[in-house]
Amino acid sequence: MTQKIQDSTVPTETNSETRLSAAALSEHVTQLFSQRMPFNQLLGLEINQLSHDKVEIRLPWHNKLMGNPIHKILHGGVTAAILDTVGGLMAILYAIKDYESISIAEFQKALPNVGTIDMRVDYLRPGKGTEFIATAEVIRKGKKVAVCRMELHNEKGVHIAFGTATYMIG
Amino acid sequence: MTQKIQDSTVPTETNSETRLSAAALSEHVTQLFSQRMPFNQLLGLEINQLSHDKVEIRLPWHNKLMGNPIHKILHGGVTAAILDTVGGLMAILYAIKDYESISIAEFQKALPNVGTIDMRVDYLRPGKGTEFIATAEVIRKGKKVAVCRMELHNEKGVHIAFGTATYMIG
Amino acid sequence: MTQKIQDSTVPTETNSETRLSAAALSEHVTQLFSQRMPFNQLLGLEINQLSHDKVEIRLPWHNKLMGNPIHKILHGGVTAAILDTVGGLMAILYAIKDYESISIAEFQKALPNVGTIDMRVDYLRPGKGTEFIATAEVIRKGKKVAVCRMELHNEKGVHIAFGTATYMIG
Amino acid sequence: MTQKIQDSTVPTETNSETRLSAAALSEHVTQLFSQRMPFNQLLGLEINQLSHDKVEIRLPWHNKLMGNPIHKILHGGVTAAILDTVGGLMAILYAIKDYESISIAEFQKALPNVGTIDMRVDYLRPGKGTEFIATAEVIRKGKKVAVCRMELHNEKGVHIAFGTATYMIG
Repeated sequence: MTQKIQDSTVPTETNSETRLSAAALSEHVTQLFSQRMPFNQLLGLEINQLSHDKVEIRLPWHNKLMGNPIHKILHGGVTAAILDTVGGLMAILYAIKDYESISIAEFQKALPNVGTIDMRVDYLRPGKGTEFIATAEVIRKGKKVAVCRMELHNEKGVHIAFGTATYMIG
Repeated sequence: MTQKIQDSTVPTETNSETRLSAAALSEHVTQLFSQRMPFNQLLGLEINQLSHDKVEIRLPWHNKLMGNPIHKILHGGVTAAILDTVGGLMAILYAIKDYESISIAEFQKALPNVGTIDMRVDYLRPGKGTEFIATAEVIRKGKKVAVCRMELHNEKGVHIAFGTATYMIG
Repeated sequence: MTQKIQDSTVPTETNSETRLSAAALSEHVTQLFSQRMPFNQLLGLEINQLSHDKVEIRLPWHNKLMGNPIHKILHGGVTAAILDTVGGLMAILYAIKDYESISIAEFQKALPNVGTIDMRVDYLRPGKGTEFIATAEVIRKGKKVAVCRMELHNEKGVHIAFGTATYMIG
Repeated sequence: MTQKIQDSTVPTETNSETRLSAAALSEHVTQLFSQRMPFNQLLGLEINQLSHDKVEIRLPWHNKLMGNPIHKILHGGVTAAILDTVGGLMAILYAIKDYESISIAEFQKALPNVGTIDMRVDYLRPGKGTEFIATAEVIRKGKKVAVCRMELHNEKGVHIAFGTATYMIG
């Protein structure tokens, strides 16, 4: 079942010395992506943690996301942005899943080493719909680098785009 | 010299039957990208036609474009969006450069066949700066498909990202 | 069931004016890939048509395919070559599947327009094994361009690499 | 000037405990690529170290490299293989350039961590020519990961393909 990260039991004002389990840290990270990344909020991304190792990002259509106003389709840059975001979140959740106990301060020190190295997007069909759903899975699992494949569908299950991205995670 | 497309001599309300030269059509297209694509406006893209076959897109930093608020860097999705946009515009300008005379109505009929097929983005350095400048060149020139390479620099000339994208153009 | 293309009922010396059905043409193309492309033979590719719209390519290990002799793993270039080949064959089979009747001469005229535009390879695990199996599916279906995803596994089902490639088909 | 690696002053039978400078190690690595990787020899790659941080790979045309025998052009897999090889060699040379002193035994321990993570190839023009020349440069320089851009030209300077690849180097 979908657990909205807004319902998270990790308080936003977590003391940075508090030690978190992997599960609590993954909720903290999902919150970061949802509430502290301004561009994700500008797009209107709704980030849901489905389980400790599964996330989805939903994006309700609004007119400002349009590329081509004649055909009312999603701008290719929006597709790329949501795919990069869901892949990056998945890569971090993968990287932290075996942490026994870490403080937020320690985690924040590691964060600058996290980032997208490269990404490919394959645009399969025009981005038409009332809502878009992005999912990701880790296909290469390493200590320093993870590779994810991402998919974007609309609310009817129409497959709009694939993504493949390589992330630095350590 | 940079000619802001806002200064364009093609009236916005061009009659759709008016026949345009390649030069006039390229101005018309640059205007479309600048003024009629809502997501480009949401980002704040400033699209400048430098000559009949050269464009650049400038993006002044603003806080809503942030991915990581701790390090104040551009969201990777913004980088992908601006690269896709400058490459796509370049691909269309390439496609229309040999048109002798075309009406806007004819051109609009061709537009649905135009779009990104795939794109790779290489993130080289953190997206820090007060302004970002995207440029593009066509590296594979075909009748149906064009491939572009794109670059993103900041205002100091620091190279932030490369892009490579394949566009359907006919 | 696997039908070895060597068993094909289309004679190698088909008269170029003979009109072929889509099924016969797809066998002809599979034969071309298997018997008339010298580099495929140098690698030792065994191309099997599994059904009218499904192929696999098998590659038995031999020492000349090694990149790293210390670890006895497949050269990354071999992985790229077999993925490009299976994707390209799949793209052509997709392109011709609706042909009602075509002569080989007509088909050969169309061939120069067929080719790889771009390809991404993701190397997931070291290429170890006694045999490698490549498969492909078409993920974007157009008249002029098709996009395929390819996979490479070894004889134990270990997933070694993913590929994604864009092909000109018309 | 081109210094053929065959002329190298590093004896092939270097004692694995001998400590090498960065310059001597780079010659050793270039030799490895040239003489100990069977697939590079099957292709006929001629690997030349142009300076301590610059390499080129030359490939004389021979019929076994053909993909399409009707048009006598290079198989796309050969293009991918030579680009992956020149990029990988460049990435390793970049990784070792600051080594003050290392033994071959130490270097060989590090080697399993070296490999291609992903690669994109853009096929620009048919691979026609009597000789092909591949070059590479490092565009993202990190401790664990390097990204290279590669180019393939023929003997007349015709640009045949671009490559972009991400390598694990540490």
